[in-house]
Amino acid sequence: MRITKETKICIVGLGLLGGCYAQKLRALGYQVMAVDKDQTSINYAMEKNYIIKGSTDPSLVKNADLIIFGLYPQALINWLETYQDLLPKGCVCTDVTGIKQMIIDKIKPFLRSDIHFVFAHPMAGKEVSGVQNSDATIFKNANFIIIKNDDEKAMTMIHQLAQLLEFANISYLDAQEHDEMIAFLSQLTHVIAVCLMNCKDNTHLKDYTGDSFRDLTRIAKINEDLWYELFIDNKETLLAQIVQFSMTLNDFKEALQNEDETKIKALFRQSTKRRKEFDKK
Amino acid sequence: MRITKETKICIVGLGLLGGCYAQKLRALGYQVMAVDKDQTSINYAMEKNYIIKGSTDPSLVKNADLIIFGLYPQALINWLETYQDLLPKGCVCTDVTGIKQMIIDKIKPFLRSDIHFVFAHPMAGKEVSGVQNSDATIFKNANFIIIKNDDEKAMTMIHQLAQLLEFANISYLDAQEHDEMIAFLSQLTHVIAVCLMNCKDNTHLKDYTGDSFRDLTRIAKINEDLWYELFIDNKETLLAQIVQFSMTLNDFKEALQNEDETKIKALFRQSTKRRKEFDKK
Repeated sequence: MRITKETKICIVGLGLLGGCYAQKLRALGYQVMAVDKDQTSINYAMEKNYIIKGSTDPSLVKNADLIIFGLYPQALINWLETYQDLLPKGCVCTDVTGIKQMIIDKIKPFLRSDIHFVFAHPMAGKEVSGVQNSDATIFKNANFIIIKNDDEKAMTMIHQLAQLLEFANISYLDAQEHDEMIAFLSQLTHVIAVCLMNCKDNTHLKDYTGDSFRDLTRIAKINEDLWYELFIDNKETLLAQIVQFSMTLNDFKEALQNEDETKIKALFRQSTKRRKEFDKK
Repeated sequence: MRITKETKICIVGLGLLGGCYAQKLRALGYQVMAVDKDQTSINYAMEKNYIIKGSTDPSLVKNADLIIFGLYPQALINWLETYQDLLPKGCVCTDVTGIKQMIIDKIKPFLRSDIHFVFAHPMAGKEVSGVQNSDATIFKNANFIIIKNDDEKAMTMIHQLAQLLEFANISYLDAQEHDEMIAFLSQLTHVIAVCLMNCKDNTHLKDYTGDSFRDLTRIAKINEDLWYELFIDNKETLLAQIVQFSMTLNDFKEALQNEDETKIKALFRQSTKRRKEFDKK
């Protein structure tokens, strides 16, 4: 199974990410269709030539070989529960959601056994939403995670998809590894940024703000519906990360209280050493 | 009192910031000298034409009208205790240290009454130190804070100095206001970045890291000697900021535990609204 110019690709959910997939694949000359509940998004994508066909009617997927779900987690589950009978026999499906274990646990029990579903997470985004803001250049330098399963052929097709979209790194993880990684690298950092903005009314300080504070709080501008879902769907894993960070912060506070120079300087050296490994090469 | 081409300027402490002051002032054609305990730094600054004269002997300051101390907090206090008799009668002095109340409290009781000392904080820096890394372009878009006192003429001179150095904003604060602002915007953010790197060994995650995590931890690469001093010298104020942030984080954790959708979404909206005010115009 490879994606070719004969492959009929259908995006379900023309939001920011669905729009980026469509934009890039169409620019490469592939046959891209889309289903969205909002006719305005369909019209926009048609005008921009992101798609060759679009509809608010889900039955458009009947003709597709590869279906890409650009939906929020719960919306994806609901869509499959309602419409999976429309999916053609033996088609390959993938998704873009930011958490995995909960979704897979909920979908697997009812998913038709002939459907090849490869769950994936394109780790890219913007602070704005909607197909009108789609810009596939966000995939350059970004990571694409494929959740491992035993369906080698379908995984190969989604790997090829990620390559076509020009992701910098394509990795394979199991769902729990993925969710722990996301809880730490992405969700905890969003919690911290949100808490920094909320811990006091600080807007009078904006005239004194340097780049450090701006960098730490940029992601405090947050899509409330999407992130609430992502946090709840990964709740226990995220809570564990928050607790671990809180304990580290409390240890630091106590070291400062005690003016424990040896300990604080050791922590500074450790953070400096570790952080250097994250510098882009 | 204005800085003119006849003004003899002496930098004491040719580190990163002292070097930036020298570089920029000399490029503008001013008479810049420097005292440093390290002959290598003097030689480097002479070669680069950052200074017209330099010495490891502090008595060079005898000829200066304006003395700029580019020293760490405790080193500044020690220097003045030891050498203030070398300072010419009626000279203007300023500093670059990142905390103010403790320094002023320690210096004021013994400082000669004829010296016009205007404490200041150029809010700019780099992750590296030393005159070899000096680059005065870090002052563009940066803030310069002058600690208010009743010495109008000397304050005017330091204001002019900040303008010559091309700082984007020059503000006046009292020492306690300054230290609270710094504790929140700069010191707390460094604590958070350091704790994020220290809360677990996370270096195996570097292949999955996006810009958010990199942005939040960039300042975890930290100069251990300087920042330990800055934290200790502003200890109580910083501890109060850490406590306030920890309480906010704990509230968020409980809201997540309880799946309190109303509260979490309200926090997301508040952080988004506040953060937008920090966007650069």
